[in-house]
Amino acid sequence: MDRIKIIEVKESIFADNDAEANRIRQALKKDKTFLMNLMSSPGSGKTTTLIRTIDALKDHIRIGVMEADIDSAVDAEKIAETGIPSIQLHTGGMCHLDAGMTEQGLKEIGYENFDLVVLENVGNLVCPAEFDTGAVKNVMILSVPEGHDKPLKYPLIFTVCDALIINKIDVLPYFDFDLDKVKEYAHMRNPKLEIFPISAKTGEGMEAWTDWLKTQVMEWNGND
Amino acid sequence: MDRIKIIEVKESIFADNDAEANRIRQALKKDKTFLMNLMSSPGSGKTTTLIRTIDALKDHIRIGVMEADIDSAVDAEKIAETGIPSIQLHTGGMCHLDAGMTEQGLKEIGYENFDLVVLENVGNLVCPAEFDTGAVKNVMILSVPEGHDKPLKYPLIFTVCDALIINKIDVLPYFDFDLDKVKEYAHMRNPKLEIFPISAKTGEGMEAWTDWLKTQVMEWNGND
Repeated sequence: MDRIKIIEVKESIFADNDAEANRIRQALKKDKTFLMNLMSSPGSGKTTTLIRTIDALKDHIRIGVMEADIDSAVDAEKIAETGIPSIQLHTGGMCHLDAGMTEQGLKEIGYENFDLVVLENVGNLVCPAEFDTGAVKNVMILSVPEGHDKPLKYPLIFTVCDALIINKIDVLPYFDFDLDKVKEYAHMRNPKLEIFPISAKTGEGMEAWTDWLKTQVMEWNGND
Repeated sequence: MDRIKIIEVKESIFADNDAEANRIRQALKKDKTFLMNLMSSPGSGKTTTLIRTIDALKDHIRIGVMEADIDSAVDAEKIAETGIPSIQLHTGGMCHLDAGMTEQGLKEIGYENFDLVVLENVGNLVCPAEFDTGAVKNVMILSVPEGHDKPLKYPLIFTVCDALIINKIDVLPYFDFDLDKVKEYAHMRNPKLEIFPISAKTGEGMEAWTDWLKTQVMEWNGND
C-alpha cells in the first residue's frame, strides 16, 4: 500500500538510553504531545485494540500511530484504514525499540501535530520492557488465551507498565483463565497498575479504558 | 518445590555461538542424545504440549526436560508432576538461550542418560530464533488465538524451525484463524517445515506429532 511510509530505524547512537528518553519526554511536554508505548506478546490483539481505541477517541483528540515491526507492514495497513496518520517503523530484526529509534519515528510522523502518538512496540514480553522509549505511559495487553500466570513468568513488563489491558474476555468460557488471580499476580509486581478487562472484538469494557487514556492525555497536555 | 533444581545460567563466554552449537551437536551424536529446542510466544501452550508429548513417549524413550525461564519455576514444577527428570534454567533477565547456556543445562541434567532432552526456551518469537542452541531440531508452537499472520510478522523463527505445531485447534470456531493461510505463509518462509495442527487440551492431532518426533529421535540416535 503506497499510503504506508516505512522507516528503517537504526539502533540508538546514545550510550545513555534513559537520558535520551527523558529528553524525548521533555520535548513532548513542551509540544503538548502524549506518547503511549503499547507492548504485548504477538497475537494478543494490539492492533485490534488500537483500532477500537482510535474509533472511540479520534473525534476528540488528534491521534497518530507508529507501528513497529521487524519486517512487515501488515499492522500499519490496518491502522491506515481508520483514516488516521500512521507510519511503519522497521527494526531490521531488532526485538525492541529504544529511545533513539522512537525519536526517529516521532520526527518522521511530525509528533507536534498530534495530541496522542501511539507506539505499537514489537510483539515481545521481554526485551521491549527493558528500554525506556520516552513514552509518557507504558501500556501492555495480556490476552486471555495466554494464561493468568504471565505476571509470574515475565515480571519486568508488569512492573514498568502503568496500565494492563486484559483482552479477549469474550473467550473466557473456553479457557482456564482466572481473572482474579491475574489481577492479584499483576498487583504483586506493581500495586499501582490500572487494569482494564476488555474484548476488542465485542467492545465490552472499552469505555473504561478509553476514558482513562483520554484523561491521561488531557492531563499531560495541560487541557484538564 | 524442592524437587526442582534451579540453575542460574550465564551468558556464553564463547565468541562464536555457531561453532559452540556445532560442538554440542557432535557431543550429542556421540552420546546418542537428541536435543529438541522448543520455542513459542508466551502462552501458546508449550508446557501443556510437552506434558502430552512426554505422556505419549516416556514408556518408549528416556526423556529429560530443561525449562528456561527468566524468573520462575512454574513450568518445571508442572513437568516434575509427569515423573520425568527436569531442571529449571534461569536466564537472569535474558530473552533467549545461546549455545553456552544450553551446554550448562545439558551438563547439569546429565544429558548422556537420556534419548531425548527437551529445551523449553524463553517465550519469545524474536530473540531465541537468532541463537543456535546446539539442538538437533528446532520446533515452534503457534497457537490459534495468536492469529494466522505470524509468519509474515516474525519470519526468522519460521525459517529456522524444522516443525511447526499449531496448538489450540479446539478453539478454532471462536477465532478468525485460517489454517490454510497459516500453512501457506509458513511454507513461504520454509518449504520444508513439517506442520502439525493439534489440541494439547483434547489430544487431537497429538499422534502425528509424537510419531514424527519419535522417528527423529530414533534416526539421530542410530536406532532406526
